[in-house]
Amino acid sequence: MQSVHIASAYDEELKFLSKRIAAMGGHAERMVEQAVAALVNIDHGLAQKVIQDDLVLDEGQREIDDKAIIIIARRQPMATDLREIVGAIRISADIERVGDLGKNVAKRVASVDGRQPNSLFRGLEALANLALTQLKEVLDVYASRSVERIGFVRDRDDQIDAMYTSLFRELLTYMMEDPRNITPCTHLLFCAKNIERIGDHATNIAETIYYIVTGDQMPPDRPKGDKTDQIVLPGMVPAK
Amino acid sequence: MQSVHIASAYDEELKFLSKRIAAMGGHAERMVEQAVAALVNIDHGLAQKVIQDDLVLDEGQREIDDKAIIIIARRQPMATDLREIVGAIRISADIERVGDLGKNVAKRVASVDGRQPNSLFRGLEALANLALTQLKEVLDVYASRSVERIGFVRDRDDQIDAMYTSLFRELLTYMMEDPRNITPCTHLLFCAKNIERIGDHATNIAETIYYIVTGDQMPPDRPKGDKTDQIVLPGMVPAK
Repeated sequence: MQSVHIASAYDEELKFLSKRIAAMGGHAERMVEQAVAALVNIDHGLAQKVIQDDLVLDEGQREIDDKAIIIIARRQPMATDLREIVGAIRISADIERVGDLGKNVAKRVASVDGRQPNSLFRGLEALANLALTQLKEVLDVYASRSVERIGFVRDRDDQIDAMYTSLFRELLTYMMEDPRNITPCTHLLFCAKNIERIGDHATNIAETIYYIVTGDQMPPDRPKGDKTDQIVLPGMVPAK
Repeated sequence: MQSVHIASAYDEELKFLSKRIAAMGGHAERMVEQAVAALVNIDHGLAQKVIQDDLVLDEGQREIDDKAIIIIARRQPMATDLREIVGAIRISADIERVGDLGKNVAKRVASVDGRQPNSLFRGLEALANLALTQLKEVLDVYASRSVERIGFVRDRDDQIDAMYTSLFRELLTYMMEDPRNITPCTHLLFCAKNIERIGDHATNIAETIYYIVTGDQMPPDRPKGDKTDQIVLPGMVPAK
């Protein structure tokens, strides 16, 4: 019975990592949702809440790192278990970074006055919804380890990139129409970029899950994301 | 003699990780230097070289990850050695990300025409020099494990943030003066942001080194970096 007891305590330790990551993931999703809501409604109180909430993820990542190292030292895991533990370290770093990106969006609420056209805010919301769906589904795959479902990741990553590119163009056009739009739209550009990056972290997480389950690197046909670095709009004369 | 032989082979494995990280660090520094040179001189060939060079860091990170896991599985390291190995995984991820940021700068060379004022390019160069000095010195601390020297990191991080903030303002002002500047200056804004992020990764690496050597987290008085999310310039009427 003794060895069963030990094995089961070990399983509990591994499950602790998975559960902690699921909780961190849920927290990061909420932060991003609320950051975008704060931006769209220019809600400074909600923005402040998101900024504070980021501490929880920093703490979560530290806890997972410490726990992972204790498990490795104590259990001396082999192969699959070791990948599981190292994977947890990587995934928690990606989730922590998603939280940072949400916080960055929240911090820009102070610099946007809400006088920009509705379509821009709707565009940001749509981009955030797509990125959050990606993150949620990737975290579902992590929970179930059903790595065969992972194909959706790259298709949706393409959609996120296409939507970001179109938003980038729209923001530039709007900046050119009236110089008073330049400052707020620059902040919205960075918000859009932050949201697009959430999709990249979801892809990183998918790659780590693939590695945990198979021991292999995901084949590198990942399409190259953000194409906005090639966008050049012609110089426009302001509307008046 | 056998155990000495085994211990020394183990030491060699740990040294392999350190050497590989030093090489990755040197490669990332060169990439960033060349990316900024390509931007300042609008050198498309050099930009292309930097973009290609990024593959070396992706490969390096994968090699360190694989090797680290093999070492953990085979040697079942305790305490310091385990921190050393987990630290190597983290540091190589930060260096890989520095390479990505260099690549991002290089990719924007295609969208900048070089007609922006010289002061902007000098500003970007100065920011890059400061970020690269930070990265180099942090990698020196890694090589020597002289963690008592790590105090410079936060002071210089403040300088990087101050320089980035001033460049951000200058770029916004320039965009407001003439709408033809909006597209190229937006790309330069993202370049500046990418370079500023290199400083953050240098700080991450410093924190990891501190953790490797002491087993503790670096005290969290790290000053909050990028303040540009609070910048609002008044709407300006174009110069003509």
